[in-house]
Amino acid sequence: MKGYCRVCPVCDGRACAGEVPGMGGIGTGSAFMNSFKALAAFRFRMKTLHDVTSPDTGIDLFGRRFDLPVLAAPIGGVSFNMGGKITEDDYILSVLGGCADRGILGCVGDGVPAFIHEAGYAAIRELNGQGIPFIKPWEDAELFDKMQKAQETGAAVMGMDIDAAGLVTLKLMGRPVAPKPPEKLRKIIEKTPMKFILKGIMTPEEARLAVDVGADAIVVSNHGGRVLDHTPGVAEALPSVADAVRGRITVLADGGVRTGGDVLKMLALGADAVMIGRPFSVAAVGGLREGVREYIDQVRSELISAMVLTGTPAVASVDRKILCEFS
Amino acid sequence: MKGYCRVCPVCDGRACAGEVPGMGGIGTGSAFMNSFKALAAFRFRMKTLHDVTSPDTGIDLFGRRFDLPVLAAPIGGVSFNMGGKITEDDYILSVLGGCADRGILGCVGDGVPAFIHEAGYAAIRELNGQGIPFIKPWEDAELFDKMQKAQETGAAVMGMDIDAAGLVTLKLMGRPVAPKPPEKLRKIIEKTPMKFILKGIMTPEEARLAVDVGADAIVVSNHGGRVLDHTPGVAEALPSVADAVRGRITVLADGGVRTGGDVLKMLALGADAVMIGRPFSVAAVGGLREGVREYIDQVRSELISAMVLTGTPAVASVDRKILCEFS
Amino acid sequence: MKGYCRVCPVCDGRACAGEVPGMGGIGTGSAFMNSFKALAAFRFRMKTLHDVTSPDTGIDLFGRRFDLPVLAAPIGGVSFNMGGKITEDDYILSVLGGCADRGILGCVGDGVPAFIHEAGYAAIRELNGQGIPFIKPWEDAELFDKMQKAQETGAAVMGMDIDAAGLVTLKLMGRPVAPKPPEKLRKIIEKTPMKFILKGIMTPEEARLAVDVGADAIVVSNHGGRVLDHTPGVAEALPSVADAVRGRITVLADGGVRTGGDVLKMLALGADAVMIGRPFSVAAVGGLREGVREYIDQVRSELISAMVLTGTPAVASVDRKILCEFS
Amino acid sequence: MKGYCRVCPVCDGRACAGEVPGMGGIGTGSAFMNSFKALAAFRFRMKTLHDVTSPDTGIDLFGRRFDLPVLAAPIGGVSFNMGGKITEDDYILSVLGGCADRGILGCVGDGVPAFIHEAGYAAIRELNGQGIPFIKPWEDAELFDKMQKAQETGAAVMGMDIDAAGLVTLKLMGRPVAPKPPEKLRKIIEKTPMKFILKGIMTPEEARLAVDVGADAIVVSNHGGRVLDHTPGVAEALPSVADAVRGRITVLADGGVRTGGDVLKMLALGADAVMIGRPFSVAAVGGLREGVREYIDQVRSELISAMVLTGTPAVASVDRKILCEFS
Repeated sequence: MKGYCRVCPVCDGRACAGEVPGMGGIGTGSAFMNSFKALAAFRFRMKTLHDVTSPDTGIDLFGRRFDLPVLAAPIGGVSFNMGGKITEDDYILSVLGGCADRGILGCVGDGVPAFIHEAGYAAIRELNGQGIPFIKPWEDAELFDKMQKAQETGAAVMGMDIDAAGLVTLKLMGRPVAPKPPEKLRKIIEKTPMKFILKGIMTPEEARLAVDVGADAIVVSNHGGRVLDHTPGVAEALPSVADAVRGRITVLADGGVRTGGDVLKMLALGADAVMIGRPFSVAAVGGLREGVREYIDQVRSELISAMVLTGTPAVASVDRKILCEFS
Repeated sequence: MKGYCRVCPVCDGRACAGEVPGMGGIGTGSAFMNSFKALAAFRFRMKTLHDVTSPDTGIDLFGRRFDLPVLAAPIGGVSFNMGGKITEDDYILSVLGGCADRGILGCVGDGVPAFIHEAGYAAIRELNGQGIPFIKPWEDAELFDKMQKAQETGAAVMGMDIDAAGLVTLKLMGRPVAPKPPEKLRKIIEKTPMKFILKGIMTPEEARLAVDVGADAIVVSNHGGRVLDHTPGVAEALPSVADAVRGRITVLADGGVRTGGDVLKMLALGADAVMIGRPFSVAAVGGLREGVREYIDQVRSELISAMVLTGTPAVASVDRKILCEFS
Repeated sequence: MKGYCRVCPVCDGRACAGEVPGMGGIGTGSAFMNSFKALAAFRFRMKTLHDVTSPDTGIDLFGRRFDLPVLAAPIGGVSFNMGGKITEDDYILSVLGGCADRGILGCVGDGVPAFIHEAGYAAIRELNGQGIPFIKPWEDAELFDKMQKAQETGAAVMGMDIDAAGLVTLKLMGRPVAPKPPEKLRKIIEKTPMKFILKGIMTPEEARLAVDVGADAIVVSNHGGRVLDHTPGVAEALPSVADAVRGRITVLADGGVRTGGDVLKMLALGADAVMIGRPFSVAAVGGLREGVREYIDQVRSELISAMVLTGTPAVASVDRKILCEFS
Repeated sequence: MKGYCRVCPVCDGRACAGEVPGMGGIGTGSAFMNSFKALAAFRFRMKTLHDVTSPDTGIDLFGRRFDLPVLAAPIGGVSFNMGGKITEDDYILSVLGGCADRGILGCVGDGVPAFIHEAGYAAIRELNGQGIPFIKPWEDAELFDKMQKAQETGAAVMGMDIDAAGLVTLKLMGRPVAPKPPEKLRKIIEKTPMKFILKGIMTPEEARLAVDVGADAIVVSNHGGRVLDHTPGVAEALPSVADAVRGRITVLADGGVRTGGDVLKMLALGADAVMIGRPFSVAAVGGLREGVREYIDQVRSELISAMVLTGTPAVASVDRKILCEFS
């Protein structure tokens, strides 16, 4: 039995628990819900006696400037996982285009069938390289072939969602994905001239390995709770990861971010920027490129409001003490 | 989509979560709910072997005597936020009049449209100054104009709900509100001969700043959970704020108070008196001035009962140890 | 609006929250629910490698032997609070008679109207003194008059539910109840030749006062959660009370006990015996004297089973370490 | 009133709370639910930068090799407790046969009526000894008679579910079960040439006693929450038990295991292998021997996936630090 996204008022992983395929978290859905709950558990120290009225939301990442510390996470297969209301081409162009219109970048997912990444790569080309192709941890031939194609899109940055290594389904389909030992990963990274993002790091030990093998960025992520039930929430894992490697590698956080307030929390917890997943899919399916722009505007407005009310002048230097839990 | 108050048996912020405009908390409603839950989490050490049978509920504030340590919080726009059953004039006169009839004071809200504060100021004049006008943290011209009008009502005390500074909506409407740096706030306070209440303080640091700039009172408040999602409950923030400044400035607490028992908890946590918001609105919309009087009588009766059963002789000196959590 | 007992599968105070009059807890019902939850939070260390197969459930209290460490708590007004299916006379005779049939004692409640205690006293006389009359903390004349009548029932033990002192309702009806300072209580206790139980002690300080003024027993009780919202559960308050006075005074516990396992928990937490309230009322209304006997048999069977599975040979000496929380 | 298994999407003990007889936990069902919740509360540290792609799920127990660290727990009476859709013979042969087909062992339950163990013993004989007969802690004659019959099935290992000692019902039926003091248990174990599993150990003290009296294995188990309400979850009790005896005796864990991820958690918490109960019953009733095989295949697939994503090369040596709570 397959369920589609119900576009819940609060996207917390309860209604869609277990729906993989679908948009939910695997098993009991706890890993998805943990990310949502972990963020919700952090609370803001509200401050109003200061002069922060126009906070700076801009950020430098991968050698360029972005208007917001936000990326659209790589999600593929929305055309079938959300009920067939939109083609994969329309979907991914809406996400990447809406992001580009607002001065940020969207990512492109990978998977089976092939039209997922093909639609994404086409969209990046159409947007003159404005997008980040993500590739699953395939075995060598498939991996290097895709990396070549990703480079040809004109994108400057690529990513690998290494946590997809647990997708036994792909292996059974004869499309093996696998964990990568550090030495192998180092060689993969050395093979591409693109900046390299490693997505799916949840521990300080592996964050340090990512630095060692030459990644440009990590994404603290439990893959939206879709590969291993009972992983902790990203906001729980983030502080120790950030403490271990911050300053030596770009740290992104992906898990449960819904609002501008959530963005600010992730930055306070040690992220340089965040990825947002399902809300972008909902916005794109519901309102195409315009819907994506509207969602970004809303996040920006909420982020500014939260920065003002915590006295935070700039996203580039957020004080952990704006959260009650660290005061 | 807009929701109205459902007059829930327990007013805890769940049914109206996200209804701003409306009577709810912003976003997930967590900030409203946190205030309710934080109070509920404190528990009383019941005591009956003593001679407290007629406890004293009177309190000195702002140079006068009140019969209860309770003020009606400033809430504007109830005429439209609660479904149009009552005009703003009838509403605010009911609240302020019912309070005056019972020896306490009600506050008047501010906002857009102008009839909110106009109705409130007219009511204060009609009651010979029995009310406290609150003004939002506007930019200079609008602020000083309103402060002048507030003074002309005959009221002896005014307030500013500085936490309204996060209302991006007002800014977009061309009616900018903003945080106030301490030096600016000092000049504002010096400009008025009225006693000055600063509402929206949630940290010891800003409570100390409020003392420094000459405020007469602070209100520990997260604005009913209506400006920033995921702020802690007022009862959580209160003890450290009170520890920092009590004795040097009047400390009021506003958030989640529903009953006389809640009043006693807030006093035990360090408040000199409390503000109560939504229950006054419900009482006024449901029963006008008489409804407000009845609600106050109920709170008084509950407060006396809670004082008797904890052996508390007077609200002016409540022992923190009547709460299990501090024993 | 008044609600009656719904005879819930689990009697935890949720369905009847706020129903006073009625069978519920006052206000949000939290004080009733806290007692239930506090007991549920303690867990047993199951043990089966021992020779306890026929544990001893007998206990010496007030100079006589009881077959179980259980008393039926004083509850009056069941005839109207549970919907009029039974007269107060039939009710209380069922409770006291069923208890006597099983070698334990039931208590008799007090209140307004007068037929509550009159029915109870008549039942005790009919059972040749097999029952414990409880009297509310009235002012002197009413109190001493009732104590005289209680003595004339032939009962050897009386009690006072001092926590009823918070019932403002009674005061408004011109029937003042009040807390008792220790000296006054000492004189009351000295006036009667009966054993004296003081019910409604929730702190070690007041437990020590009860010893000082000469009470024979205390009951750790929050009055079924019916006098002050937000009191802690009895099982939470019990250990520190028992640590303070055990051995010098009989310690009873009354709050949330439903099963024989709950009885054993209370004993492990420091009680000499327990009172059970609402379940006796449900048993009596549903099955009269036979229903009460059946309920007692069920509790006995559950108690024996719990003692066997924790290796507890006798209720007179229960090891706190049978609970996980103290191991 | 008797309820049958509802085959809930998540088998957590809520729907069937109190259904004994039936498939639920006793009383409030908390002991069943505690086992489920305790497991769910442990979370995985996800790791993907390593070379574990084909983890080893094999394990040596009782002198032979098993393909998975999983046994089907002894459950009798499914023919009537699950609604009569299947005979006890078909049921137990499906469980034992499906297990044998997949290189693991199923256990056989005991109880009243006699056809429960008779069906089980017949199935073991049919499968040439592939099964483990469990016997309740009867008094001597019945016990030794059953042990003799168990041995004649050709099985190499037998077990006793000592925690069934709390079943007062059996005692009332004139079929006394009882706890066993260590010396008596030693003699029982010495009487049989079979390997002996003692099921129902929840504390380190009794685990050490089990070593002392010569048991080959213990099962940390609260009997599926069916004998004593308010016992802790097995996953809570397991670490201290394992710390006390691991290496000196085989440690099995039985309580709330549903998925391969749960299996891995139990191993990380100190178990050598796990028992799974109700899910095997559901699989057998729903799909007979084929259903059992499918369930085992699913658990294997989930276990492999969880091992890959935590970098665990073999079930024989699982690092406790793959769980967040021990890192």
